[in-house]
Amino acid sequence: MEGKAGAAKTIRKDRRKTSFKGRFQVKKSFSLGQIAAHIDGKVDGNPSLVICGVASFDDASENELAFASGAKFVNRLHSSPAGAVIAPTNAPEGAKPLIRVQNPALAFARAAWLFVEEPPVTGIAKSAVIADDFVCGKEPSIGPGVVIGRGVRAGDRIRIGPNTVIGNNVTLGDGVCLNANVTIYHGCILGSRVIVHSGSVIGSDGFGYASDGLTLFKIPQTGIVQIGDDVEIGANNTIDRATFGKTLVGSGVKTDNLVHIAHNVTVGENAVLIAQAGVSGSTKIGRNAVLGGQAGIAGHLEIGDFAFVGPQAGIAKDVEAGAVVSGSPAMPHKLWLKVSRIISTLPQLRKQVGDMEKRLETLEGKAHGDGM
Amino acid sequence: MEGKAGAAKTIRKDRRKTSFKGRFQVKKSFSLGQIAAHIDGKVDGNPSLVICGVASFDDASENELAFASGAKFVNRLHSSPAGAVIAPTNAPEGAKPLIRVQNPALAFARAAWLFVEEPPVTGIAKSAVIADDFVCGKEPSIGPGVVIGRGVRAGDRIRIGPNTVIGNNVTLGDGVCLNANVTIYHGCILGSRVIVHSGSVIGSDGFGYASDGLTLFKIPQTGIVQIGDDVEIGANNTIDRATFGKTLVGSGVKTDNLVHIAHNVTVGENAVLIAQAGVSGSTKIGRNAVLGGQAGIAGHLEIGDFAFVGPQAGIAKDVEAGAVVSGSPAMPHKLWLKVSRIISTLPQLRKQVGDMEKRLETLEGKAHGDGM
Amino acid sequence: MEGKAGAAKTIRKDRRKTSFKGRFQVKKSFSLGQIAAHIDGKVDGNPSLVICGVASFDDASENELAFASGAKFVNRLHSSPAGAVIAPTNAPEGAKPLIRVQNPALAFARAAWLFVEEPPVTGIAKSAVIADDFVCGKEPSIGPGVVIGRGVRAGDRIRIGPNTVIGNNVTLGDGVCLNANVTIYHGCILGSRVIVHSGSVIGSDGFGYASDGLTLFKIPQTGIVQIGDDVEIGANNTIDRATFGKTLVGSGVKTDNLVHIAHNVTVGENAVLIAQAGVSGSTKIGRNAVLGGQAGIAGHLEIGDFAFVGPQAGIAKDVEAGAVVSGSPAMPHKLWLKVSRIISTLPQLRKQVGDMEKRLETLEGKAHGDGM
Repeated sequence: MEGKAGAAKTIRKDRRKTSFKGRFQVKKSFSLGQIAAHIDGKVDGNPSLVICGVASFDDASENELAFASGAKFVNRLHSSPAGAVIAPTNAPEGAKPLIRVQNPALAFARAAWLFVEEPPVTGIAKSAVIADDFVCGKEPSIGPGVVIGRGVRAGDRIRIGPNTVIGNNVTLGDGVCLNANVTIYHGCILGSRVIVHSGSVIGSDGFGYASDGLTLFKIPQTGIVQIGDDVEIGANNTIDRATFGKTLVGSGVKTDNLVHIAHNVTVGENAVLIAQAGVSGSTKIGRNAVLGGQAGIAGHLEIGDFAFVGPQAGIAKDVEAGAVVSGSPAMPHKLWLKVSRIISTLPQLRKQVGDMEKRLETLEGKAHGDGM
Repeated sequence: MEGKAGAAKTIRKDRRKTSFKGRFQVKKSFSLGQIAAHIDGKVDGNPSLVICGVASFDDASENELAFASGAKFVNRLHSSPAGAVIAPTNAPEGAKPLIRVQNPALAFARAAWLFVEEPPVTGIAKSAVIADDFVCGKEPSIGPGVVIGRGVRAGDRIRIGPNTVIGNNVTLGDGVCLNANVTIYHGCILGSRVIVHSGSVIGSDGFGYASDGLTLFKIPQTGIVQIGDDVEIGANNTIDRATFGKTLVGSGVKTDNLVHIAHNVTVGENAVLIAQAGVSGSTKIGRNAVLGGQAGIAGHLEIGDFAFVGPQAGIAKDVEAGAVVSGSPAMPHKLWLKVSRIISTLPQLRKQVGDMEKRLETLEGKAHGDGM
Repeated sequence: MEGKAGAAKTIRKDRRKTSFKGRFQVKKSFSLGQIAAHIDGKVDGNPSLVICGVASFDDASENELAFASGAKFVNRLHSSPAGAVIAPTNAPEGAKPLIRVQNPALAFARAAWLFVEEPPVTGIAKSAVIADDFVCGKEPSIGPGVVIGRGVRAGDRIRIGPNTVIGNNVTLGDGVCLNANVTIYHGCILGSRVIVHSGSVIGSDGFGYASDGLTLFKIPQTGIVQIGDDVEIGANNTIDRATFGKTLVGSGVKTDNLVHIAHNVTVGENAVLIAQAGVSGSTKIGRNAVLGGQAGIAGHLEIGDFAFVGPQAGIAKDVEAGAVVSGSPAMPHKLWLKVSRIISTLPQLRKQVGDMEKRLETLEGKAHGDGM
């Protein structure tokens, strides 16, 4: 988050003009002491200071709270325009009121939710088309144009955005939030508190065909997609149903936008898939693994737990647990850094080799001429 | 499919618990003999054996049918938990009942459809908004929230999922299946039995502008997209209409998810475009060509019939018919395999060259010192 | 556009058969003189010649207008089947009637719009679900199934396609055109004449989490997306809302299909983002910059004004204004051309180095043997 300060600065004036913030942050305030209690921090300054919102380090106003982590921000901690700053426990003292915590970014995220408007429960819109046998928990919010098929079961406090379509026999856990224009195919299972952003498609047919040598014959895709708890799926993702069994997305997984997950893939708990990454069929992504943006993973592979796959990497072999790999074809990231520096010097390398060859010929000629 | 066995094994227990299969596979059974007759195979074992479904090689139960192709599976044919296995004609004999066929994968796909539930014909949902002049064949299934514009003509037994939008003057062949939340722009033509998965957009404007040097002026995109018969389009694809004339997708083409096809592209019959591949404007993809996942093809090129473009390949020149190319920039695949092995050894190569240069200098110095 | 002639030629016959053009081009005609006056050109030939439409250079008929720019087309200007051709001011004279202009492509685009059907104003569809407080200018066209939230303000002559969803407090300028199945999240601001193609999602949550080392905690994304005037967003794009402040898309920007723009990104005026390009969080794209297809830009970078990033390039560092870069990792394009030629010759280079090493050993052996 801190790194965004530069970009944020450039749009600061515009932001002030539109004053849209009131729409998304509750117009209420907390004392620095109240916030510190909420995030298990220690106030360094006046605990009665009134805070009315949160903002980024360089863009906060005098009644807003920011945060600093990393030397870049901690070193200029007391120059932030913010009213107060969440800082590491060992941050230097100064004029600026602080809340000291172990993990400033996490504490800030928790503080930020204090100021976010809880959307109201809206009930079920008249224009939603819902099968008679829909089993739904308490306090649903189901928008206009939503279509829910037969045999669907949902937990409490689900939020379904307008024009989202839920196929037959889908199961949705408590607190599931499907934004507008989402599609969930029949039979898929979403755990509690799953968020799916607009345009994403869960449970489309896996890409499976048998060939007669010239034409392709569709293999029925009779499996499902099962998604664990606390998963967030970005916008315009595609997650295909399994041929048999399940495509599995573990609890805590977060996917960015335009991510592709093929049939029979398993994504381990808390894995992170950055925008436009793609995972081919039957591959297993380990828990807490990270796939960089536009990374591509071939089929039938194992990416180990806590592995880190760099952006645009092309993975054609298994990746060990904890490994950091980059490049296409992928290699250890440290090697890739060396290699990538050499790649741009290949013209010099080739010239150097050509020059050496001439010198070698000269030496050989002399050696021959000298009777060597 | 066989290759999926490993991943399938890991989720086996879960799958049993949910027992969702009954929802998607008809609860009926066939004798091994009946199935063999359907797929033109020869039974090796008891033809009266009752089969209740299909599953993958390592995940099938004793009343299910699996298949084996490739040495990996054929060698352990008789160890499958399946009740019977579809196997190559020359597979070894053993305890396991077999159906012997020429093409086990294809035969299995055909057998699998025996157990798949035929979706019922649902008629036209009340909440669909359809122009008066809609010409539609028999037995349509048109879901809630579907919008169909003026001048649309459709064949028999079309299936249109909820909230799908069909623009003016679209033509849909017999048996077309558009899943939920699909968009077909005006004037596009889809052949018989075309399947389009959710979120896909057919006929959006091509990316065409004329520049005055600073700003871009939109060129009207007055062409269409025409799609042949038996095409399947994955989820969240984008296929742009032509500037003039047609963007053409030939019969039998299969596209995976998140594939981009630009204006005026021609995709030849039976071509396969794997997930996240992109084809730039006016390029012609040959019949039965395969584009790997995340491959990118520049504009105005010809990719020959039966060509194979590797995953993440970047194609900036024509590709000959039958060629297998990889890399970015692309080269023959066999060369790419050599090159890609060398790339990760570039640091050693450079060091080797540096060491040789020193040795050369030493020799030159000696030669000079010796009066050479 | 000229470059499309080859592909267009191959589909010429088909096009004639379907004769769909009448649906999208108004059935009216103009004299060559009228068209020349409209596009500020000079007629070379009979100004009374009647023109009934526009088409591509090799595909036009005798009552259609084409254009030629670039030696490839200008050299065979008078062989076009078109009734007349828009040509550069210095094009050679000949039998073919011409309209001479400074910028043929731009003039042609302007002429083409003369023949395009203006869609009728349709009012607000009965099945649209619109909040009571909707403030809308004159002559709206709002399709069936559209959902518009509270606090939305729109200018004159907006066109909203079927099943598009507009969140609370969105602002739409005059002449905004949202095609079918678009999603605009709450609070976003679109300038005048913005076009958004189907399936695109504007304002989904930025991908922001704070980690406790194992699990990720969502950071509320309370900012918006603001889009300037005359922007066109392709199909199935994803543009995330800012964490705080705005994700900004400047006036005149054009994005192709499946483009990803992360939270807090700024895209400068008139920038062009080709299909499947992705921009990570807080990066700033300069005005009139071009990102090639499938290019990936890391976060917190600055891509200078008028910079050109090649297709599939991977950008991990700032790019200077006006620079042309390619490759992954990116380098100056001219260097990349050299490097990419060498990459495919690496096997020879390594063999050459190996051979030289042997020759060097021979020389060293001789030198040693000779007492050097």
